[in-house]
Amino acid sequence: MEIFAERTQLALDLVGVFFFAVTGALLAARKGFDVVASALLAGMTGLGGGVVRDVIIGVRPAALEHPVYLAPVLLAVGVVYLYYPHVSRFRRTLLLFDAAGLGLFCVTGTAKALAADVPAVSAALLGVTTAVGGGLLRDVVAREVPSLFRYDDIYALPAMVGAAATAVLWRLDALSVWTGVAASVVTFTLRALAL
Amino acid sequence: MEIFAERTQLALDLVGVFFFAVTGALLAARKGFDVVASALLAGMTGLGGGVVRDVIIGVRPAALEHPVYLAPVLLAVGVVYLYYPHVSRFRRTLLLFDAAGLGLFCVTGTAKALAADVPAVSAALLGVTTAVGGGLLRDVVAREVPSLFRYDDIYALPAMVGAAATAVLWRLDALSVWTGVAASVVTFTLRALAL
Amino acid sequence: MEIFAERTQLALDLVGVFFFAVTGALLAARKGFDVVASALLAGMTGLGGGVVRDVIIGVRPAALEHPVYLAPVLLAVGVVYLYYPHVSRFRRTLLLFDAAGLGLFCVTGTAKALAADVPAVSAALLGVTTAVGGGLLRDVVAREVPSLFRYDDIYALPAMVGAAATAVLWRLDALSVWTGVAASVVTFTLRALAL
Repeated sequence: MEIFAERTQLALDLVGVFFFAVTGALLAARKGFDVVASALLAGMTGLGGGVVRDVIIGVRPAALEHPVYLAPVLLAVGVVYLYYPHVSRFRRTLLLFDAAGLGLFCVTGTAKALAADVPAVSAALLGVTTAVGGGLLRDVVAREVPSLFRYDDIYALPAMVGAAATAVLWRLDALSVWTGVAASVVTFTLRALAL
Repeated sequence: MEIFAERTQLALDLVGVFFFAVTGALLAARKGFDVVASALLAGMTGLGGGVVRDVIIGVRPAALEHPVYLAPVLLAVGVVYLYYPHVSRFRRTLLLFDAAGLGLFCVTGTAKALAADVPAVSAALLGVTTAVGGGLLRDVVAREVPSLFRYDDIYALPAMVGAAATAVLWRLDALSVWTGVAASVVTFTLRALAL
Repeated sequence: MEIFAERTQLALDLVGVFFFAVTGALLAARKGFDVVASALLAGMTGLGGGVVRDVIIGVRPAALEHPVYLAPVLLAVGVVYLYYPHVSRFRRTLLLFDAAGLGLFCVTGTAKALAADVPAVSAALLGVTTAVGGGLLRDVVAREVPSLFRYDDIYALPAMVGAAATAVLWRLDALSVWTGVAASVVTFTLRALAL
């Protein structure tokens, strides 16, 4: 079953990978990692959530079949490398990019799981997994307190709202690129309001 | 190949998920996580070991096909939320529930791997993986020292005994619900004696 | 598609598992883990990278099908248990074994991914994943700073060189046991020079 056209899913995915990869590269920069370690952390953050989702669903990860998924990772590392000295509000920048990735991935992750004939409830949970997975991996391997568990923060809830909205839209036969992007924007806004 | 009847496997699984989810919710409560983070940690703890096992075997995780697996997670979060202020011996309670989950999962995990035609030795190891995986994930993401590696503790050994017993019972054609539950009780007892 | 003959792949794998398992057992010894925890950490370190690679490719992990993969893990635990009191330069020994595992696994991991019809670029990345995965898992669960991210260290770069060389050799139809082992030795040397 196809939810989004293949090119649409790919385009949204690549943008989401870029957003998350930026957060990985930013954290690497602040921690003083070299460029190789930065690329690895950016790659894990950008690709981690989607790979975990695909492995659980039982399909070969898209990032494996299409090496173009590496492009946004390398772009993010390059951009951060050039601009990092000029980023004055590091933490806020990281969290805004993270929120943008969260908004996109909770929708595309849910759509990809629905396309693999997973029950709607499980699909929404896999959407949340896609959205929070990369950032959780980033924080665990870089030994940061995961955003997911910061007591003064609302992190997973917006992703749950976005993923549930995607599943409901699909049930109502109303899931399109436009309603999907709308759900992403709502998720991003809810998350950004908590910053 | 079927080891336990499907309903039996499901029932034992759900009870095990509940036990482990309680430990995740208890740890979340002590760490002051909000209810969403608590549900996520409870879910990872309860479902993590089984999902890792199924992904390694190469079958779609049961928790994905049957959203009923979420019920014990939500129940655990609710129970802990209501009773937490009355739990006087927090750590001991957590470890007892953990031991109960360990006892069940080392047996059902081994049985599920045997059912997927994995060699008996590997099946027992996957049983241990199922039993210790959720708790390890819980401790890693919540930045606790994993029970697995506490020097003053006997944690994995009982799970190894239970998983090996399950594989041996199966080889002897003597694995039934009753002998399986007996192996679980022995595992739980061995683990509880170490507390 | 076959890259290395099955027996060759198995032999190289077992040697790589031994090298990494030694590092897990050494770290366990220094941290005062008991023998069971030591075996678990050695097993995760030795088998982790390959299992993650196989799960991502979508094949059943070799270590699951062939319980002989446990032999080098147990051997490593035994050797470390006997010799640990005599290891005078603990950290250097650990890093040398780690470098040897890195050298082997970046080549065999890439070859195994190529054999599963993964694009060459992705295959090289899976080779790097195989090479760094076990050590990353070891450091995360044992709460060490991952070598991957130590700022004064060149860790992943040699593995990238070795994996890329393997993919290029394969493209040029020049990948054999001998050129593969040569790529491993170059990787090991590059890594050892950084110590």
